[in-house]
Amino acid sequence: MSEAPAPSVTAAALAIGDELLSGRTRDKNIGHLAELLTAAGIDLKEVRIVPDDQARIIEALNALRSRYDYVFTSGGIGPTHDDITADAVAAAFGVPCSHDAGAIDLLGAHYAERGMEFTDARRRMARMPVGATHIDNPVSRAPGFIIGNVHVMAGVPSVFQAMLDNVLPALKSGAKVYSDKVDCPYGEGDIGDPLTAVAKAHPDVNIGSYPRFSGTTFSTEIVIRGRDQAAIAAAKADVETMLADVGARLGPR
Amino acid sequence: MSEAPAPSVTAAALAIGDELLSGRTRDKNIGHLAELLTAAGIDLKEVRIVPDDQARIIEALNALRSRYDYVFTSGGIGPTHDDITADAVAAAFGVPCSHDAGAIDLLGAHYAERGMEFTDARRRMARMPVGATHIDNPVSRAPGFIIGNVHVMAGVPSVFQAMLDNVLPALKSGAKVYSDKVDCPYGEGDIGDPLTAVAKAHPDVNIGSYPRFSGTTFSTEIVIRGRDQAAIAAAKADVETMLADVGARLGPR
Repeated sequence: MSEAPAPSVTAAALAIGDELLSGRTRDKNIGHLAELLTAAGIDLKEVRIVPDDQARIIEALNALRSRYDYVFTSGGIGPTHDDITADAVAAAFGVPCSHDAGAIDLLGAHYAERGMEFTDARRRMARMPVGATHIDNPVSRAPGFIIGNVHVMAGVPSVFQAMLDNVLPALKSGAKVYSDKVDCPYGEGDIGDPLTAVAKAHPDVNIGSYPRFSGTTFSTEIVIRGRDQAAIAAAKADVETMLADVGARLGPR
Repeated sequence: MSEAPAPSVTAAALAIGDELLSGRTRDKNIGHLAELLTAAGIDLKEVRIVPDDQARIIEALNALRSRYDYVFTSGGIGPTHDDITADAVAAAFGVPCSHDAGAIDLLGAHYAERGMEFTDARRRMARMPVGATHIDNPVSRAPGFIIGNVHVMAGVPSVFQAMLDNVLPALKSGAKVYSDKVDCPYGEGDIGDPLTAVAKAHPDVNIGSYPRFSGTTFSTEIVIRGRDQAAIAAAKADVETMLADVGARLGPR
């Protein structure tokens, strides 16, 4: 389907971590980010997952940040030797990565309050590209950061989500995309042809068709998205009429 | 961390579908693929998710297929108007996309047996790049396909998994990667420095550190991967000694 008309604000996600590619960890951040961006009127257009490898992070980040309005990264900003995201982001922007004075103060006070040692490992979490601004971390204090259009956040889902909540209000938002759906008891093979006709008759909305398989039969969720609610309602009415015609031909499911 | 030594066989995944980027559907195929490839000794090195947009699919596919030994795609091969993966893959390879005679026979017989109409929509599922070979689909019959090093599979998880099962035995396999893990009751901030020392002392394995947050405290899973089981065991012993030292200093958790 063609895209809905502009104005649109676009974004990409970059999830970083060997564990996501080995299957040890199932990513939980991309789906969450997708949902919240969509609700904010921002179109997530591409996702990449790369390993903890500086060259790969830099390459993906530069590809994405030049193409989309916003980039959101997850992972690799913890205190251990395999957390190399801050260095890679700094290298992508061509700036040094160093201990941020504000972050050192914040973390130093945090660990002092708790009687915990401010180890070199913990000090690593204060490193960020020079010129970056903090993303507040209410869960475990060590901040994420923003540089240019890139938002660097933690991989631990509870921390990622808290950081995203702090970032979203400041983002520019596109025109809201509305959606409605029709649950269809028939498989795509039964509705594909008439649904194509409905889609052609409603070029101002995007009609998606998502098959479900129960183990014995297919059904379909038909989703209509667009920026004009009246256009969505008109397309939905035509989808429902189409399904009634299919039902009359094939009988009930 | 540096990679484990060669020989390695590499792969990338390309998940295709607007619904993955809007948040409506949470991808279930990437994690499954990652697990099975790792078990087969194949290194999944990169994942991309792109919308149902021909230019984006072609661009991602060409980037990935030129760089890795194998590419596995999911989604966009159903019977509806928004299923454009077969056309995009054909365009990426510069070959026509047409109804495959074998697939038409297979699907024609399948629907005839069931007394179901072989609609134009269902015939769409027999379209594939000229020269592609089938991936058998025991769940719902419509085949996936292989062209060059690219394996094109369905997005519905049960079908994706069945297709992958049919594909895996024919893949060349790298040296098996073994792994072991140590559950660590301390957060990364407490173990980061000594873990870095252990990692430096064992350059022949990859040591990953994965934080977990209970809502009040952090703990860590330390994973040691490599192609030599004795090297993994030696690194694990040093990790355990390191954790005993940390425990003696900080007290039990």
